[in-house]
Amino acid sequence: MNKKFNVAIVGATGLIGKKFIEVLQKRNFPVNKIKLFASEKSVGKTVYAFGKELTVEKLDEGCFLGLDIVFFSAGASVSLKYAPIAINDGALVVDNSSAFRNNPQIPLIIPEINGNLLKDSVSRLISNPNCSTAIGILPLKLLDQTFKVKRIIFTTFQAVSGYGQKGIDELNRVKKGAKPSVFPLNVNKNCIAKIGENDKYGYTDEELKMVNETQKIFNKPILISATCVRVPIKNCHGVSVEVEFEKEFFEEDIKGILNKTNGVKVCDLPSFETASGKDEVFVGRIKKSLAFKNGISFFCVGDNTLKGAALNAVQIAELLIKFGKIER
Amino acid sequence: MNKKFNVAIVGATGLIGKKFIEVLQKRNFPVNKIKLFASEKSVGKTVYAFGKELTVEKLDEGCFLGLDIVFFSAGASVSLKYAPIAINDGALVVDNSSAFRNNPQIPLIIPEINGNLLKDSVSRLISNPNCSTAIGILPLKLLDQTFKVKRIIFTTFQAVSGYGQKGIDELNRVKKGAKPSVFPLNVNKNCIAKIGENDKYGYTDEELKMVNETQKIFNKPILISATCVRVPIKNCHGVSVEVEFEKEFFEEDIKGILNKTNGVKVCDLPSFETASGKDEVFVGRIKKSLAFKNGISFFCVGDNTLKGAALNAVQIAELLIKFGKIER
Repeated sequence: MNKKFNVAIVGATGLIGKKFIEVLQKRNFPVNKIKLFASEKSVGKTVYAFGKELTVEKLDEGCFLGLDIVFFSAGASVSLKYAPIAINDGALVVDNSSAFRNNPQIPLIIPEINGNLLKDSVSRLISNPNCSTAIGILPLKLLDQTFKVKRIIFTTFQAVSGYGQKGIDELNRVKKGAKPSVFPLNVNKNCIAKIGENDKYGYTDEELKMVNETQKIFNKPILISATCVRVPIKNCHGVSVEVEFEKEFFEEDIKGILNKTNGVKVCDLPSFETASGKDEVFVGRIKKSLAFKNGISFFCVGDNTLKGAALNAVQIAELLIKFGKIER
Repeated sequence: MNKKFNVAIVGATGLIGKKFIEVLQKRNFPVNKIKLFASEKSVGKTVYAFGKELTVEKLDEGCFLGLDIVFFSAGASVSLKYAPIAINDGALVVDNSSAFRNNPQIPLIIPEINGNLLKDSVSRLISNPNCSTAIGILPLKLLDQTFKVKRIIFTTFQAVSGYGQKGIDELNRVKKGAKPSVFPLNVNKNCIAKIGENDKYGYTDEELKMVNETQKIFNKPILISATCVRVPIKNCHGVSVEVEFEKEFFEEDIKGILNKTNGVKVCDLPSFETASGKDEVFVGRIKKSLAFKNGISFFCVGDNTLKGAALNAVQIAELLIKFGKIER
């Protein structure tokens, strides 16, 4: 009796595309038909998923016809070009790229934080946040409800998988003595405090994503600074979060509130190794700030390919189904 | 005509002890006689330095007699026990351990910041700061003079050499599949947000060192939070610094001020690999804070075994000589 949907993944052969396939299967997403799209060089390859051999297809005129939901994870330029076509052909789009995240007419959603926005939304495209943003701000949901977040300083520890398979390959290559070609320094011998390009004010893309997306998701002008750093770790992003609240807070309440926050798991010391492959964001090293009267700091770690990408996008699609936004 | 001094290094066979030997030679420190001390298991070993074979000696009654200056780098318990004996036997002590750093009667010195305190000091023991503190706050010297530092949030990226040779050995061991025995998690697969033990408020030793030592060196109650993280890097510590000033500041002045700060080298993107073996603290990613009206952030990297340890201690001794504090 439950409805099933025709689903597609654009960028299906990439590191995150593969995670989409994994997550959809693991969560028993109600898939009727599935289509996989990728760039020219992967077209024609076969992938075993959902109990059958699937052939990777080309993005083409009419390729989205008959689809209910399309997950885009092939970079901003592909989304900019093809997402409007998918929508025009009748599909709902969940976009993992940065292409539409700052567009005020497009919802940017972390289901546990602002998923309810989807109830009344008429947008046919929903943006999925940046990996570090999703991991860094999920723990703030109930804390913000209770004490009102005023100011945040983010410092990230981001694995090479944040740059996709190319990032993982680069780490392996430079370990064997090759020169860096993907990252600006040898990522095996450096923590590289530069992810993406600098703007004229000295901020990188990645840092501005954290600032702008956090403000959009919490829907208020929180004062935010971010420093984003690539570390010689294969998978998972860590975020050190220093947060000031508007209201006076009670230190003894913090752990209880974090424990009640959906998607969060409180622990003493988060491990990148343990968090890899897990859905939760692990939060530890919770302590009262010594820099702010009403503030705390914590260190959180999550799988950037899951809550930081595919999992959050699939959770968005699940909400869209729940709220009856996908017709079939 | 220049005076030469009888010098000793306690903990001479450790990673930092070896750096002391290296730095003293490189800087042509005016050594008359040199004695090397270490723990029982190294006693009797020979080390070639200062043009001769030196035999490592045991800490013993009367072992400091005739010495002018003794560098301690063998941990807090050794300093607590033997530094008073060295002083009693007539030596001046520069202590690289944490043993006396918080003692209000003991100067805690970064020569470029508060070296002038040594002019009028009568203390026979001078403390050398924690590695991350030295690297993180050196760039703040002239900025504080100009705009007055009010608040700092430190987030560190600390190499395994911060734990000495044992830390380097552990990284090599876990890379080959061994289980962690020195650090609380596998440091090859984790950024470990815990250096030292937690106190009852959730702060680690290392974090409290950054807070207390920064306040002591700047001699004012700056509001400071710190999160200290071990990273899978062999050498050098990185510190992400977010700082709020009391006074209005001029963004265009910042780089010029940092460029004029002794011991600091301004660059676009600091490299752990490049900073290793260098005396300077490399400062990059300088940007206006988006969290504070009057604030900036930067990322700095320095060699924790040099400016973070041996170099700073030898610079202290050079100042003591300059100010005529060492008699011969």
